[in-house]
Amino acid sequence: MSASARRCTPMETYKSILTYDGTDFQGFQRQAAGRRTVQGELERALRTVGWEEDSLKAAGRTDAGVHARGQVVSFAMTWRAGPEALKRALNANLPQDVAVRRVEVAHEDFHPRFSAKGRHYSYSLYCVDTRDPLRLRYAWEVWPLPSLEMMNEASRRLLGRRDFAAFGRAPVEGGHTLREIFLATWRSVKDGLIFDIEADAFLYHMVRRLVAVMVSIGQGKTSTEVFQELLDDPKKRWEGSIAPPTGLCLEEVVY
Amino acid sequence: MSASARRCTPMETYKSILTYDGTDFQGFQRQAAGRRTVQGELERALRTVGWEEDSLKAAGRTDAGVHARGQVVSFAMTWRAGPEALKRALNANLPQDVAVRRVEVAHEDFHPRFSAKGRHYSYSLYCVDTRDPLRLRYAWEVWPLPSLEMMNEASRRLLGRRDFAAFGRAPVEGGHTLREIFLATWRSVKDGLIFDIEADAFLYHMVRRLVAVMVSIGQGKTSTEVFQELLDDPKKRWEGSIAPPTGLCLEEVVY
Repeated sequence: MSASARRCTPMETYKSILTYDGTDFQGFQRQAAGRRTVQGELERALRTVGWEEDSLKAAGRTDAGVHARGQVVSFAMTWRAGPEALKRALNANLPQDVAVRRVEVAHEDFHPRFSAKGRHYSYSLYCVDTRDPLRLRYAWEVWPLPSLEMMNEASRRLLGRRDFAAFGRAPVEGGHTLREIFLATWRSVKDGLIFDIEADAFLYHMVRRLVAVMVSIGQGKTSTEVFQELLDDPKKRWEGSIAPPTGLCLEEVVY
Repeated sequence: MSASARRCTPMETYKSILTYDGTDFQGFQRQAAGRRTVQGELERALRTVGWEEDSLKAAGRTDAGVHARGQVVSFAMTWRAGPEALKRALNANLPQDVAVRRVEVAHEDFHPRFSAKGRHYSYSLYCVDTRDPLRLRYAWEVWPLPSLEMMNEASRRLLGRRDFAAFGRAPVEGGHTLREIFLATWRSVKDGLIFDIEADAFLYHMVRRLVAVMVSIGQGKTSTEVFQELLDDPKKRWEGSIAPPTGLCLEEVVY
């Protein structure tokens, strides 16, 4: 874009919502060269349409293999043709496994992480006695079927504000481990179960550890008392397994 | 297996039901070396557990990219430990994108293709205005949303026995093109539509052509009269597009 065109069109901050299949990515956050990330692909598409900044901001750094229907990013750029055309231009330059669902102009102070009031993740299990190749990309194979009732009895204990140190460390070194959970509930679907959880923010691997504990409770391998102790005493640690990334999806970031 | 063991355990014919994700296969049927096929993977797993025949039989040769929840194969072998153990042994030797759902002893005359009385396929559309990376592996992106009512009005015309030459050639050279359709119906799901079709058998690419025509009708691009002419006159040919393999799944073979 020429200098004269730039004078006519002011730089704007854009908020954008992304969907991606995390399977073939080394997570969201840009990494060393040669490691494919969602951020890397998006920044490449942005540069193709004239973005000249160094780095975009995102609501959450999803891990390798984790999916998103509602990741939120922001970036500042000069663009003359309107948000809908920017969305189409980005999608035309993105690979098949990432798509921009929405682009809108945001306030210049908008920050996808710091402005967020809540994050909603889902975690999907499929519960059949034989591996299902048509489901394993987006769910965790769990058998025998865990008890929905026992898992929901456990998930209700998560509600409210508390120190979740037993289930993960802060994403920022030295950050506190207090989090407030607004919603935590399991529901039954065909041959499977889906967990929905919403909190102000999450610790590193927290959802996947909570899912692993609740599945263990639902299969009668871990008692609710042990779970309650982990919730009550942030000096304890959940030493059991962690649910795989395949089942996890960042559904929505709430502002 | 030693000759003495073989004398104790007679050779049996096994019927097996498979699920697979067709994305990374060059179709079901074994091909030249270097081309990955479902049959090739299954025969390799069978050989690992002692199968010594040359080729297995299958109900249908799904194309590259087409999925299956209910493909049926048969093979003859000597196996001492029972069908359930055979299923587990095969699954332990199969890659993640193929699984054996069921193994049972069948009559020695059982042939998965010739014994079949019907095949049930599903075809999934997702209908949103932006590419959805979490759905495009198992569905066809169609926008604008086609009319469910118009598609079902068209699909009802498919029922019964007729010459479907306008929509495909016989899988066997010189084979006839008469087919009987028992079920053909569209239903609405979240952000999408699913077509279920059951027939005694199908012509090559027939389901994908029928889906393409009906989507075109549902979007107001093709008239029902043109469709009816294609159904009435087997000398005509559908010259329009063909739906991609991603949305197609062999659900069940009926015996």
